[in-house]
Amino acid sequence: MSALHRSLPSLRSAVTSRSSSLRKALQDAPHHHQYRFASRTTPAQHVRSDPMTGEFIGLKELDARSLLIQKTQSPKKPPPSQSLVFGANFSDHMLSVPWNSATGWSAPTIHPYSPLQLDPSAVIFHYAPSLFEGMKAYKDVNGKVRLFRPDMNMKRMNTSADRLALPTFEGEQLITLIKKLVSLDKAWIPSEPGHSLYIRPTLIGTQAALGVGATTDALLFVISSPVGPYYKTGFKPVALDADPSRVRAWPGGVGQFKLGGNYAPGIKPQMEAAKKGYQQNLWLFGDQHLLTEVGTMNLFVVLKNADGSIELVTPPLNGMILPGVTRDSILGIARDHVSGESRLDDLPANLVVSEREISMGEVIKASEEGRLVEMFGAGTAAVVSPVDRVGYQGSDIHIPVGSDGAGEIAKAMLKRISDIQLGRVEHPWSVVVEDL
Amino acid sequence: MSALHRSLPSLRSAVTSRSSSLRKALQDAPHHHQYRFASRTTPAQHVRSDPMTGEFIGLKELDARSLLIQKTQSPKKPPPSQSLVFGANFSDHMLSVPWNSATGWSAPTIHPYSPLQLDPSAVIFHYAPSLFEGMKAYKDVNGKVRLFRPDMNMKRMNTSADRLALPTFEGEQLITLIKKLVSLDKAWIPSEPGHSLYIRPTLIGTQAALGVGATTDALLFVISSPVGPYYKTGFKPVALDADPSRVRAWPGGVGQFKLGGNYAPGIKPQMEAAKKGYQQNLWLFGDQHLLTEVGTMNLFVVLKNADGSIELVTPPLNGMILPGVTRDSILGIARDHVSGESRLDDLPANLVVSEREISMGEVIKASEEGRLVEMFGAGTAAVVSPVDRVGYQGSDIHIPVGSDGAGEIAKAMLKRISDIQLGRVEHPWSVVVEDL
Repeated sequence: MSALHRSLPSLRSAVTSRSSSLRKALQDAPHHHQYRFASRTTPAQHVRSDPMTGEFIGLKELDARSLLIQKTQSPKKPPPSQSLVFGANFSDHMLSVPWNSATGWSAPTIHPYSPLQLDPSAVIFHYAPSLFEGMKAYKDVNGKVRLFRPDMNMKRMNTSADRLALPTFEGEQLITLIKKLVSLDKAWIPSEPGHSLYIRPTLIGTQAALGVGATTDALLFVISSPVGPYYKTGFKPVALDADPSRVRAWPGGVGQFKLGGNYAPGIKPQMEAAKKGYQQNLWLFGDQHLLTEVGTMNLFVVLKNADGSIELVTPPLNGMILPGVTRDSILGIARDHVSGESRLDDLPANLVVSEREISMGEVIKASEEGRLVEMFGAGTAAVVSPVDRVGYQGSDIHIPVGSDGAGEIAKAMLKRISDIQLGRVEHPWSVVVEDL
Repeated sequence: MSALHRSLPSLRSAVTSRSSSLRKALQDAPHHHQYRFASRTTPAQHVRSDPMTGEFIGLKELDARSLLIQKTQSPKKPPPSQSLVFGANFSDHMLSVPWNSATGWSAPTIHPYSPLQLDPSAVIFHYAPSLFEGMKAYKDVNGKVRLFRPDMNMKRMNTSADRLALPTFEGEQLITLIKKLVSLDKAWIPSEPGHSLYIRPTLIGTQAALGVGATTDALLFVISSPVGPYYKTGFKPVALDADPSRVRAWPGGVGQFKLGGNYAPGIKPQMEAAKKGYQQNLWLFGDQHLLTEVGTMNLFVVLKNADGSIELVTPPLNGMILPGVTRDSILGIARDHVSGESRLDDLPANLVVSEREISMGEVIKASEEGRLVEMFGAGTAAVVSPVDRVGYQGSDIHIPVGSDGAGEIAKAMLKRISDIQLGRVEHPWSVVVEDL
């Protein structure tokens, strides 16, 4: 047995005692307890072996069965629904699961919402190993709590984690944990139409060391925030600044992953667009000025083709496009309509669905020929966000939005997705959270 | 006077009292005190006006004169120099300067090294508003402390901050503060040859809110870490994996800024290179497979041209290349040699300096014709890092490194830069830190 293996019993007991200290900390400090998540791990610790045989026994998987719950002793009153600002208020509890490369995932804990305490050298502050998801919990017509396609978020979260050399996990385990969290904070889900509880799973690297490499420590946490409807007083179509000098993503880059580092660089272009009178950026790519995304949303363009058909176009998942859950849902609804699997009266009978490249040249030509029918963004926050104007190379392209501010396809998609999310129509995408 | 202006006296006094609470906290909690940096600021607070006249008086600038120093009551013993691992040990003190969009920069504080406490919704965890610099303090031959071109770091840090809509500052103020920090932790600067105190200025967004936008709160902090020589036992040339499928930066992107988000995505490619037997990635760009950077360093290639001249080539600052301080220093030394301003015996008499694009095709051709003289990375950690092999499209290009593992130009640059850093030759790039 090597020296490395001989040192493992003491390492294992250190881990066990860390876990019991955590339990103790949770009992002793009901309010404002803080976690120290960063720790220094030497490479020698990166092996987990049986202390008796020295055999490699693998890392501990994320396991919802080992959940510890510590309820708040001082529940807050959720703010009035009409006062909600996106992502500004947080529910009473949060979920935390530390990970270490020597031991794997620790026992998950649901505990009072509280600050994170991290060493100033923690890699998250320096090299941005960070990724997140956006999900929503809804109260349905019968008061039941529902999630929308959480498996899609888990799949993408693991893809992002793998890309940043952060730990992956079994998606079903985190869905179970999120259900528990949402159940516990059920009072924080506003029940007014269009309201929901926004759920933010986040994964960060926390190793306290400045070397650039795979982190030895990470923290998975989930917070949630009650949010109001995106459109309080009807649709508000947005104007987009299509400036080809700002490029969001690139082939061989990381645009198709939901990484923190993809978001901060978009803030200044958005501020510059706002100065010019546009609400968001239309991100272009390449010499042909291909349309890719809009702000932090996926993009859909609707064209009337020469044969009279209505074509719903969205850029393909070519490595530069975030694989949005709403994007995928819109494509699925449209394809089920076309195939006859689930026809919808408010979608065109002659609809064609295309995941394909589309350039500014094609958009301009369609506009000039009166064939540019609609344009909209798609994402979890708004579901759909109609576009009525695109500023490009000094002039504006105007896009029809109808008298109520949204095109027919955008409206049909919003209605169908909302119906599914709220259980007004039964659909496998909507997952009921049983009281836990 | 508007309602907004009328509310300002109370806001101002809140700011003042926050500042005195900080002073009090510093006095009361000599050990393990923690800061809560995240706060929720409403847009209405984004104006700072004179409480009497209502006139806009601007935000408070970063001001070294308002520094508060709280020395540790329990100084640690610096670890033995031979045991140092890069970025794993930290000195007794750190610098913190919070910023808020309503008030500007708070008074800087130097205080014991201690964890940061941040709300789990703080934007740093979600959208990666983070940037940093790498600098070093050296003990010179007379025991004086020296910094190397700190103005270059300040300039780049402000450029990065502006790109992420984070606050900027007057570089001289932060240099003064860093000098104070380094002075206070002088015992942490190892005096053995090749050793130094690595300094890590960092700026992060800390607003506790999930909306994607310019942060209302930020934290500038500086930590430092004693480091040993990069080459303990002579040069160790590295082998590079030149895989064009992984792209570090692109035109219109953020590769020329020192952002946290540029680093985490490089970790997995580095791990994949390691599996194939290479130490680092050679980052290529475009159809011509242009060479851009190596790992987290700038790149230099030395060619022997047809006319017999020796050409030192580095990719130009075209928006994809980090403007490295070592890169700039190597170019400066080479140009001073060529111009006669400061000729060096160990550089070729017929040297030509080129900031220009160079492709893998050109490198292969030069190698085949026996004209590929040297290749090396350049950065703060190693100064120069010789390359002896590049794996590209299934075969290896071998590059001469000489019997001691480094080429002549790399060695000449390392010697010259080290001489300046350590004050062995007087040069305006080397800044003496007077005892403060």
